[in-house]
Amino acid sequence: MKKVALVGAGMSHFGQFYPDKQLTDHFAEAWVNAVSSVDNGITPNDIDGGLYLGNFTADKFNNQGHIAPLMANLVGLSPKPATRFEGACASSGLALRQAWITVAGGAADVICVGGVEVMTALPTTGVTDALAAAADTTYEYPAGATFPGLYASIASAHFAKYGTTSEDLMRIAIKNHENGALNPYAHMQVTISKLMANKMKKCEDAGEPVDWETEFDFLNSSSNPMIAYPLRLFDCSLVTDGAAVLFLASEDVARKFTDEPIWITGSGQGSGALSLSDRPPFTTFAAAKAAAKIAYDMSGKGPQDIQVAEVHDCFTIAEVVAMEDLGFYEPGTAVQAVKDGETRRDGARPINTSGGLKSKGHPVGATGCSQAVEIFKQLRGRAEGERQVKQTLTCGLTHNVGGSGATCVVHIYEKEV
Amino acid sequence: MKKVALVGAGMSHFGQFYPDKQLTDHFAEAWVNAVSSVDNGITPNDIDGGLYLGNFTADKFNNQGHIAPLMANLVGLSPKPATRFEGACASSGLALRQAWITVAGGAADVICVGGVEVMTALPTTGVTDALAAAADTTYEYPAGATFPGLYASIASAHFAKYGTTSEDLMRIAIKNHENGALNPYAHMQVTISKLMANKMKKCEDAGEPVDWETEFDFLNSSSNPMIAYPLRLFDCSLVTDGAAVLFLASEDVARKFTDEPIWITGSGQGSGALSLSDRPPFTTFAAAKAAAKIAYDMSGKGPQDIQVAEVHDCFTIAEVVAMEDLGFYEPGTAVQAVKDGETRRDGARPINTSGGLKSKGHPVGATGCSQAVEIFKQLRGRAEGERQVKQTLTCGLTHNVGGSGATCVVHIYEKEV
Repeated sequence: MKKVALVGAGMSHFGQFYPDKQLTDHFAEAWVNAVSSVDNGITPNDIDGGLYLGNFTADKFNNQGHIAPLMANLVGLSPKPATRFEGACASSGLALRQAWITVAGGAADVICVGGVEVMTALPTTGVTDALAAAADTTYEYPAGATFPGLYASIASAHFAKYGTTSEDLMRIAIKNHENGALNPYAHMQVTISKLMANKMKKCEDAGEPVDWETEFDFLNSSSNPMIAYPLRLFDCSLVTDGAAVLFLASEDVARKFTDEPIWITGSGQGSGALSLSDRPPFTTFAAAKAAAKIAYDMSGKGPQDIQVAEVHDCFTIAEVVAMEDLGFYEPGTAVQAVKDGETRRDGARPINTSGGLKSKGHPVGATGCSQAVEIFKQLRGRAEGERQVKQTLTCGLTHNVGGSGATCVVHIYEKEV
Repeated sequence: MKKVALVGAGMSHFGQFYPDKQLTDHFAEAWVNAVSSVDNGITPNDIDGGLYLGNFTADKFNNQGHIAPLMANLVGLSPKPATRFEGACASSGLALRQAWITVAGGAADVICVGGVEVMTALPTTGVTDALAAAADTTYEYPAGATFPGLYASIASAHFAKYGTTSEDLMRIAIKNHENGALNPYAHMQVTISKLMANKMKKCEDAGEPVDWETEFDFLNSSSNPMIAYPLRLFDCSLVTDGAAVLFLASEDVARKFTDEPIWITGSGQGSGALSLSDRPPFTTFAAAKAAAKIAYDMSGKGPQDIQVAEVHDCFTIAEVVAMEDLGFYEPGTAVQAVKDGETRRDGARPINTSGGLKSKGHPVGATGCSQAVEIFKQLRGRAEGERQVKQTLTCGLTHNVGGSGATCVVHIYEKEV
């Protein structure tokens, strides 16, 4: 099979923009940013394989299905193939993987991979209901298991088995907001300490007492309400609109587009039962382990080789599970590594330098591609400003989960040295 | 790239079964029938590539997204990859094509391709609304353009340009019902003449006058109400529940499963604008022409080589457009060929021997795969009873359309002689 390179990647500004910006607006913005990132330029004529688009449910969020040809036509790709991929929050991870298979196998030389979701078109209850369709709606959702509830069960199981604490999870939120605050495309560009300072000032102005001094005090207070025990508001990712676009090219043509291609040397995917209740123990996802194994074996790399990773932190506990499923840390030990600062931008293996789903935002169908955008930027040393990791990076990873773990896609990226 | 064979194919009984049968019931039935069709047997262990599943919108029809891992887990494929593909009514055609690319390119040896849709869970207005999301819901649907209306526009344009008539379309409905009446898996297993006789008896019993003698009289009467001029009830396909499953295998392993593989020698896909209004002239689909050209070029076959075809007759006019887009007949001449009986089971090139979407039924996400089921059976001489074409068949084609033509997938199948 052929080597496959990422030769361009860009995203739209993530946030809450409805009704000012619709699906097509986000996709067009991401397309323009991705095109701009291609050193030697790219045009629709170059893209023989058409569009591979991830989207969870524009059907429900926007009353619009069949959106791949809509987006392909928008950017001048008709009559080339345009296909939508769906695997809940892993939808554009699946699109990336299938595009990788297509280019590696020789059926196309260049493919545009995209992801898009506009979630804020619905009221909150509608969003909860639409997202619930990514879990089991026959048994789990009717019993009250929304996504915060499902991940709360995972967190409770992790707490019980390994002694993980709420403070351990808070450290992840704090870190990811510190990163997101430096990402001009992130939904929430603000640190927890800044949020705390703002709230403190507001309370002082109002003459209300403030009994917290640290970020942990703040996150343990009523300013961070409980959503589903033990998960509080700042343990949850955001309801976000956005899009991301990637350009994949085979080794035969990659150099036409850039002298600095990022090779995708491993691509793995796994699946599991849709119901979390069918997948004990809740503290690990078999689909993620299967996906990671395939990707590691293919690339010849192991957890120890990964220098930077974007993992699927839809909830803070999910980042813990991800670090352990990927083999970065033994089960139960990831939170100590977080405490030691290993996953900070200046740590041994920075995780979610983009801000992650927690702070960059989580437009579900766009998330998988947006993770690749960050790794593309980090490996090329072109992440905006202070967000760029200082050490030289040559190997990164993305980990994209659908639902409560029924789908997982892992990719490994390498830069030539 | 490797040669890719279809080594097994089966479908569930199409029809209106909700709430007795749900998504999983249909998929399991199709899986069992597909497994039974594999001469030497097949087990989940053989299927290294996992499940490629087409589905339009279980999100809307059944309030369940993320259904690929649900189905994969049901049949024992976890933790292998499970991916859903969506392109409206071409969803499982897309799954088939992507699985073909994966096996041909060497990323997997065996893949299970499936399609499923349970449409009757919603009331009629809900079905119309859900289907409308396959068209443009920003401009066209709010203006009143449901699918019967869009295809009525196509029919009107064809009538105006080529002199096509309502009687021309009726001949397609009559033919497809004659075929479907012989298909034990079809939704409507009844001919138009039988329907007429039934209605005639009912009228006579009630003492009501009957002023029709031929099927055309019947189809021109109030027994066949106008839906969207010039399309009447029997110009429209059915709202159906069902599933279909295929097994693809690379040339390296195909003989393990059968001594009679059906090789998929051409696979093409095209796209176009989502809005019909953006795609004049309405009498042809650029996406279909693009898909057909790719498939023909790849296989080295041309329209003249195709001996049997399943084409996307979501409305009778769509079968006319398909025959012309595929190059079987020059634009404006297909209806004369139908009149001459060329597309009947005993004609020169039988079309929709399964009964087509018109009579077999159209569970939208399952349709693409179910077309392949019919060609698999016909080329192997194993279609049930009188439905089997008498002449020896070695080359067939499937043509699967999404929406009003924004997506099209074409596959060419060959049997070794």
